[in-house]
Order: sequence, then structure tokens, then C-alpha cells
Amino acid sequence: MQIEQVDAFIIPSTDPHISEYTPERWKMREWISGFTGSAGTVVVTKDKAGLWTDSRYFLQAEEQLKDSGIDLYKAGLPETPTLPDWIASELSAGDCVGIDAEVYAASEAKSLIEFFSGKGLNVHTGFAPYKSLWKNRPANPANPAFVLPKSFTGKSCRDKIKEVLAETKKNQADMTILASLDAIAWLFNIRGNDVEYNPVCLSYALVSEKETVLFIAPEALTHEVSGYLQQEGVAVAGYEIFGEYICGIPPETKVLIDPSKINYALYTILSKTCIIKEVTVHPVDSLKSIKNATEIAGIRNAMQKDGVAMVKFLIDLEKTLKNNETITELDVEEKLRAYRSKQAFYVGESFHTIAAFGAHGAIVHYEATSGSNVPVLRNGILLIDSGAQYFDGTTDITRTISTGQVSETVKRNYTHVLKGHIQLALAVFPAKTVGMQLDILARQFLWKAGQNFLHGTGHGIGCFLNVHEGPQSIRMNYNPVPLEPGMITSNEPGLYLAGEYGIRIESTLLTVKAKTTDFGDFYAFETLTLCPIDTGLIDAALLSPEEINWLNAYHQEVYSRLSPLLSMEEDGWLKEQTKPVS
Amino acid sequence: MQIEQVDAFIIPSTDPHISEYTPERWKMREWISGFTGSAGTVVVTKDKAGLWTDSRYFLQAEEQLKDSGIDLYKAGLPETPTLPDWIASELSAGDCVGIDAEVYAASEAKSLIEFFSGKGLNVHTGFAPYKSLWKNRPANPANPAFVLPKSFTGKSCRDKIKEVLAETKKNQADMTILASLDAIAWLFNIRGNDVEYNPVCLSYALVSEKETVLFIAPEALTHEVSGYLQQEGVAVAGYEIFGEYICGIPPETKVLIDPSKINYALYTILSKTCIIKEVTVHPVDSLKSIKNATEIAGIRNAMQKDGVAMVKFLIDLEKTLKNNETITELDVEEKLRAYRSKQAFYVGESFHTIAAFGAHGAIVHYEATSGSNVPVLRNGILLIDSGAQYFDGTTDITRTISTGQVSETVKRNYTHVLKGHIQLALAVFPAKTVGMQLDILARQFLWKAGQNFLHGTGHGIGCFLNVHEGPQSIRMNYNPVPLEPGMITSNEPGLYLAGEYGIRIESTLLTVKAKTTDFGDFYAFETLTLCPIDTGLIDAALLSPEEINWLNAYHQEVYSRLSPLLSMEEDGWLKEQTKPVS
Repeated sequence: MQIEQVDAFIIPSTDPHISEYTPERWKMREWISGFTGSAGTVVVTKDKAGLWTDSRYFLQAEEQLKDSGIDLYKAGLPETPTLPDWIASELSAGDCVGIDAEVYAASEAKSLIEFFSGKGLNVHTGFAPYKSLWKNRPANPANPAFVLPKSFTGKSCRDKIKEVLAETKKNQADMTILASLDAIAWLFNIRGNDVEYNPVCLSYALVSEKETVLFIAPEALTHEVSGYLQQEGVAVAGYEIFGEYICGIPPETKVLIDPSKINYALYTILSKTCIIKEVTVHPVDSLKSIKNATEIAGIRNAMQKDGVAMVKFLIDLEKTLKNNETITELDVEEKLRAYRSKQAFYVGESFHTIAAFGAHGAIVHYEATSGSNVPVLRNGILLIDSGAQYFDGTTDITRTISTGQVSETVKRNYTHVLKGHIQLALAVFPAKTVGMQLDILARQFLWKAGQNFLHGTGHGIGCFLNVHEGPQSIRMNYNPVPLEPGMITSNEPGLYLAGEYGIRIESTLLTVKAKTTDFGDFYAFETLTLCPIDTGLIDAALLSPEEINWLNAYHQEVYSRLSPLLSMEEDGWLKEQTKPVS
Repeated sequence: MQIEQVDAFIIPSTDPHISEYTPERWKMREWISGFTGSAGTVVVTKDKAGLWTDSRYFLQAEEQLKDSGIDLYKAGLPETPTLPDWIASELSAGDCVGIDAEVYAASEAKSLIEFFSGKGLNVHTGFAPYKSLWKNRPANPANPAFVLPKSFTGKSCRDKIKEVLAETKKNQADMTILASLDAIAWLFNIRGNDVEYNPVCLSYALVSEKETVLFIAPEALTHEVSGYLQQEGVAVAGYEIFGEYICGIPPETKVLIDPSKINYALYTILSKTCIIKEVTVHPVDSLKSIKNATEIAGIRNAMQKDGVAMVKFLIDLEKTLKNNETITELDVEEKLRAYRSKQAFYVGESFHTIAAFGAHGAIVHYEATSGSNVPVLRNGILLIDSGAQYFDGTTDITRTISTGQVSETVKRNYTHVLKGHIQLALAVFPAKTVGMQLDILARQFLWKAGQNFLHGTGHGIGCFLNVHEGPQSIRMNYNPVPLEPGMITSNEPGLYLAGEYGIRIESTLLTVKAKTTDFGDFYAFETLTLCPIDTGLIDAALLSPEEINWLNAYHQEVYSRLSPLLSMEEDGWLKEQTKPVS
């Protein structure tokens, strides 16, 4: 920092692809601080260092930062300054803030630079001292890619490229550039294993009338994948030469990008000679979000298998508890993984399972560790949020179950969450409706009780791709992307009472056409997830007739779809769990 | 146009204050086209002329444009080009579009100029040929202003100016400029009579540390008002010299403006020498929207009086129909006006009454004319949307009533609208919630039936000021302004079946604090409007117990607040109308 005259250095948690999950090589924040949480940003000044992270990691960060000399800044608390504000208050006009443009989304870097400029601070955007300081820094992964056949994707790579090119032209651009790993995997119908949970390959891509190029490590390309790409008209180049390659794009080329999905280093190169056409949602992300008939059939299969695994697990859990055998949160993770892994086309988990008993359930993104692990007792609430990657689909399901008698208050709270879940599942809405308009359906009963949950109600889910994808969402915040037929979105209201328990009920929704009238097109949701909802936690007196009908019809569907795949004993259990509520 | 080399001239419907209702002087669009609807824009090219207006005026425009040589462009239909697109397609690169900067909001002018520049067209922003061509153009009005005492406003002008100055500084500005007539009326606690329905004075204002100046015609200032303004520390200057005055603002002065509330001519003057600080909501509009205790007490009184007038009218209507006497839509307007005018502090109507029988009810902004006027028959649906200005408050109420037997379908539709009205009235929501999040509460039952209404669910309402005010709204569109305690907003879901009938149920909501919990502050609504809802149109089987409770409690409140002000006979009628539904 002294040599480069940098007075404050920011180290965020992402990578050159602005990924949610990053390869080991890009865990600089973990390297410098020892803090391993999924979210957190470190700032180093000449005499101070701080880590900003959110409430789910306060305890963990406090422990991991002990004796590190790094102070914990609890983001979101009223007394905590935001990271940029803190930097502005620590530095003086004329000082310099260092960031590594390679790990900042262009949109974020631009607003940060604007903010610091307004405070009279300079920004050094090429500051990445870990390049030389980090001994034994892991190399970029280059695991073998593989082709996902058309029987799963429903559309050839060649056809997808044509559509992307048409959209690129519609946006008055000659070319588009992709850095999001899931966008690239979708476009080329390839998958990989370069990061945890997301079945993607480290890569970049470029699509123009003249050429379509996939930038990927040669080691990742099997003979089969190389042949396939050639056949689809895709040229291949090395991952490492991408930056160089785009330097050579002819001047004045109009390049379409989503500035929130491309890093600022690439943006800077492009903006030197090209005309940048910015979009807030990249056409690939729009196209990817609308699942085709093959993908929807696949996800239905995946849901059935996932439901079978969940039911087998729930029966196992019930037996274990009945027999007074010990089962811990980590055992739950392990058992769930085992049941899922027996299903056809199983690849792995789609995210780290949250198995949270009692008070742990109130920690929204709890992950059991050997230190935190507790046994599941016979008198509480167990929240299990888990999912899997199958070749034919990605699942994400949360069920909250009671392991014994619960109080009326617990039942009321659970029923409020369930009512919200059902009301969202029952929504009918005109074309062009965005998630923010529907969000209250899931929250209204909690709000009336003076309660709320501070995460989104719904996120997009990929098809054998990232478990969190855009562009749509259902949240309290505004997102202008409407919910369209073919989109797959989670429905996951919850309630978290610190020190007591957490409740979340999550299924996956498919947007479908409902009807067309004089008032236009109306859409609705179909719940894809197949797994019983714990009726032992319900206060049926609080449900409306419409809600009871939904619950009973849902359970009937769960039973009829899963029953053929269960043993007689399992079938009996499921029949009992799905019997009508009145 | 030839002399000034203008190839297309746009004539909109607003005035230098970007008002909804304009003085006669600014009805250029009406002058040039003969079309008198409240919304419409004319474009004149060398060989064509067109009027763009929306569906509520298609019929009227067709009639009024007959033989005018002006073509009707039905805005909103898929086949109709937007006005800027049409101009771009008619002109060639290098051609010039003329607009009068004085009657364009700065924000709108800027986006129009950007659009046309993108098409290679020039924009002449000072083109206002009606200045010389319009013979006998009416002068600007200069009716006497009057002071609204603190017993109605609850806060002195001096204190309001202090608050505005504090907000101006908070936005790093030295000065702010106001052009919105209702904002100025609120700030100075004066009212006037220069435009229809809105009790405002034609004026501009400037607030800085050094001075507060009201620019108003000398004829408008009575001795009383002059003395009052002097006492409050307000300097006065002529309305006409405002442009000149702001030319003299010292260079580099930081001026706070809302570019959607100030015309482009003023904006251009300011931007030459001053530093413009733009806000999307002007502090005066924010402050004005939060009603103080005095204003709320006033509006409660106004609601009681308005309810009495409505009840007397409804009894009169019922009798008239029972006696087989004729009563037309225009008679309804007249009778309503008469009953309201007998109430204390009555000033006038707050907008043109919509009395729409049968199929007329499906025309959202129907105004009966001698040509369209029909008698109210004893077998249909009558929609009445009306309101008044009282010194102590502004009202806006819609009731839809049956004048005979109605079908089950009508009842179902009416009950769906009512359920939405009730669900919105029952909403509880956390601080920071915006109208778009609540809007679905009012629409959900219609959406499930494949129906909708294409106007907003709620607009802000002033206190003895404009019946439509911002900054909050409850709509399908995003508006980032949260609903805060003290705001007054309408609740007006509807349903319009072309050629059949229209339904709308509108009351006024006050946002109030509901509770504070571990999850923060929660707000709710209190319905201020006091007038029975026609239970003869309700299918009670479709109402939830919660909805029935609301309706009965509302009717009990209506009865207990209005009964003391009614004759025995009227009281009997109201008792019957408000008896519990089960």
C-alpha cells in the first residue's frame, strides 16, 4: 500500500465472474482475515483493519477475527457506518482507495468511484497486492466440462446462440460478452464442477455475427466436449487470454453488456475502444429464466425424486427420535445427502444444507459446524432447508417440523407463515406483474401480528444450474422484471424469533398461464415441490376454507405423485401425513 | 412554423405550473383543436395534424374533431404509435420539432429532447406561436387570495418556511424554487380561486436563507393578505417578473428543484448560472403530505359534513325514484352540490362530479353533458364519484348504488370490488412500505376472476387543497415514496364492464401507527370517509368473517358519527342502511 500510495484497500467476497460461490483462488477476503462466512468485506487502512458482515455471521466473525487485529463492523445495525462512509471518515481529501477492478462488478465499481470522488478521494482500480503476497495461492480450477444433452436442455446451443444474437441486434449491438458462469453454461449446454454447488465451468464467452467463442481452460475440454462445441459452431480459446482477446475487438464495435454481471476491469478495456450498450438484464438471463417444456418436464421429475428422498428422510428421522437414538444437525445433513444421492441423475447438493434445531433455526443462514452442532431433541422445532442438483433439475425445499408437542403460540406463528405460503401459491395476476406486487401475499398475516421476515420471499432457480438465479424475484424491494410463464421461483416465507426457533416453508413455483379475458392475460403459479407440510404445527382454525382446500389438494397431489415410488410402509406414513385437514 | 423552420409542433394540456387544472389562458390545445377533454396532446406538422388522447375521450374527441382536419390517435391501443414515435416517423433527420418550454416539465422536456436527438431531430424549445396567433387569449387570472388561519393549517407559514429551509440545506442547496400552485398555497397558508376545483393562486415562490419571496399578481393581494405575509417575513413580487428575478440569482447559487414540478423554461434559465440540485420529491411535497393533528381534526369534520350531505342526497334519490319522478345524471350533480353547499365551511366541489348511470359507469372519467345525460332508472347501477372543498378539508368519495333488483353476477362483481376495498382498509404494514406493495390487496379478488381496473387504487389528497396530490400513491406502478403516518390516500378499487355498468367504492384512508414490535414500526389505515356502502349489492356469502366484521364496524362508525346531525327520519334511514350484515 505504501509503494502504490494506497491509503485504504477494500477486499470483497466475489471473483472476476461476480459469482455467489467462488473458487478457492478468489477467497482473498478469507485469506487476509481468516473469516470464512459467505458474505463479508475487509478494509485495510494504514493503521486499522475492519470486516463488515451481516447479522447471520456476527458470532462466527467475532470468533474467527479474535487476535487478528481486524475489527468487526456489524453491518445493518444503526450504529455501524457503511463501509464507504467509514473509509471516507478515515481518509482525508486527496487520499487514495485501492480496489481490484477484476473482482468488482462494473456497476458497483462505478458507483463506488462516484461516491469517493464526491468525497475528494482518488480510487486506484488496479490494486491487487494478493497477486504477489499470497503464497501458495490456489490456481484457477479447470475440471472437465461435460455436455448436457438436448433431452435435458430442450434447445440446442446453436438455437440459443441464434436467439441471443437476435436479442443483441435488437439492442443495437454487434456483439455481446458474458462473464456469468451460469449464463455461459446455459448458452452452450455444458456443465462443470469448478465451484461448489453450482455446476458450472470457469469461462467467458463472446457472441457476435462473425463468431461465438468460449474461453475456457484447455484441460477442461474433453474430446467429447471439443467435438460437440465444434459441431455447434462454437470456437474455443483459452480462459486466460480473454482480456487480451477483447483488447483486439475492432474499435467502434457495439458491445452489449450487463454492467452488474461483468467486472470493472473488462468494462474498462471495452470502454476504451468499443461502444458499450448497457442493459439491466442480459438477454441470456431473460431467456434462461423462461424454462421450456423439456426443462419443465425435467424439473417435475427432479421434484418427484427429491420428494421421495425427503419422505424417506422424514420417516427415518421420526423413527430415530421414537427410538430415542441421537441424531444431530450434522447427521441430518448427512442422512439427507445419502437419501438424495440414491436418486437417478443425482449430482450433488445445490447449496449447503441448513439443518437448524431450536434457536439455531432463528439464524437465517445457519450452517451446523462441529462447534455448533446439537442433537435434535424430541420437544422442538427443526428447520431443514436443502436441495440437490440432478441432471434434470435443481431443487430447493424448506420444511419446518415439530419433534414433539408445541405451544399454541408456535402453531399460530407457523400457521401465519403457512397462510402466506398458500396465498402466494394461490395468486392470480395479470401479465407484467412484478414480484414486489405479490410479495405482501406471503407477509400479510405476519405483518398483522407485527412480525416479518427480512429475506426475500422468492428467488429464481436454474435448471441443473444455480439455485439462486435472476432476473425475477419476489421481494419487498422493487425489481422491474415481471413474472412470466415458464419462470421458476421459490416461495419461502418464514419467521425467526432470536433465541427461540425459526420457521420457513419453501416450495418452488412455476408461473403458468391461467386465463385470457377482456382484461388481458392472467398468470398463476403451480407448486412443483412434492413433500408434505407438517400438519402437526397447524392451527386449522386460522386457515380460511380456500387455504384448507389448497392444503388438502396439495397433499393429495404429493401423495399421488410420490406413493408409486414408496414402499408399503413409507406409503402408509405418507398417507397419514397427507390426510385432509378440516 | 415556416418562418421559424419548425416541422412539427407539439401542444400539450398543461401550463407553466404543470397543473392538472389550468386557467383558460393555458388551454392552447383546446383553442387549436376544439377538443375539451382534460387530457390530450395535439401535434401539427406541415401537412398533418393529430390529437392523442386516451380511451375515456375517444368518443368525445371523434365528435369534437369532426371536420377540424385533425386526426384522432387513440393512445394506448396497440396499433397507435406514441406521439414521439409518430413525429420521428413523419420527419426526416435534420428537421425540427417545436415545443414551448414554458408548458413542459423540465424532466419531460429533457427526455423528449434526448429522444428526438437520438433520431437526428432538432428541438426548438421556444416555439409558442399562440402568443401572437390566439386572438382574445384570456389573461392570467388574479383573483383575491385569502389567508387560511392556523386553526385550519395547524402550522404557521413562518414555521413551514423554517422546515423547508432546513430540508433545502440538507440537500446541499442554498435556495429552492416552487412552481406548483398547491405547494405554494400550503407553504404560505394562503388559498385562492384562480383555477377550477383547486383552491390555489397563480404564483411562484423562492425560499432562501436571505429571503422568502412570493410572486403573485398585485391584484390578488388584499390588504389583509399583504399584512399577513409581511408579518410572516414573506416578501412579495409581481407574478410576471419571476423569470426576470431568477435571472438575477447570483451565479453558482445552489438551487433545489423537482424537475417534474418546474417548467423547462425556468430550468433553462437556472441552469445557465446556478448549480441545480435535483430531487425526485420536493421537500414541500413531502411535508405537505404528512397531515398534522389540526389538519386531521379538520378533515374528520369535513368527512362528517360530507357524509351528512351524501346521506341526505341518497335519501332524496331514493324518494325521487320511489315516487317515479325523473332524476337525470345532471340532476344528481346538482342535488349533491346543493346538499354539500349547505354544510359549514363549504367552498365548492373538489372536482367535476361523475354521476354515471348504467353503461356510463363503465366510462371511468365520465362527465354527463346535456348531450349524454340520461335519467336514472329503477333497474340499474348508479356510480357517483364526487367531493367538496371545505375550509377544514377536501373530500373525494365514490359510492355505487343499485336502483332496483340486480343479478347475481352484478353482486359477485360488486362484492369482489368491496372485498378489495376492505382488504386494503385492513392492511397492516412495516415502515418504508410503498403503495405498489399494498396495491394487490385491492385487486386480488378481481384478478382471480380474470378482471382488473386500469386506474390507480389510491392517490394523495390535500387539506383544502388539490384532490389529487403526491407524492405517495397506491398503484400497479412503482413509486418509491413510502406511506407514512399522517398521509391521506384514497382507496378506490373498481370494475368497468364496457356497455354494461361500472363499479367503484372509494373512501379516504389516513395512515396511522399500528404497533411497534421487535420487527420495527408497523402502520395501518383508518377510513375517514363516512357514508354507507350499499349492502343491497353485496353477496355476503363471498365475504370472509374478517371482512364482515370490518363492514359492520364501519357502518356502526358511520351511524354513530352521522346520526347526531340527522333528522329523525334520516336517522331511521341510516340505521336501516347500516344494520349489520351476516
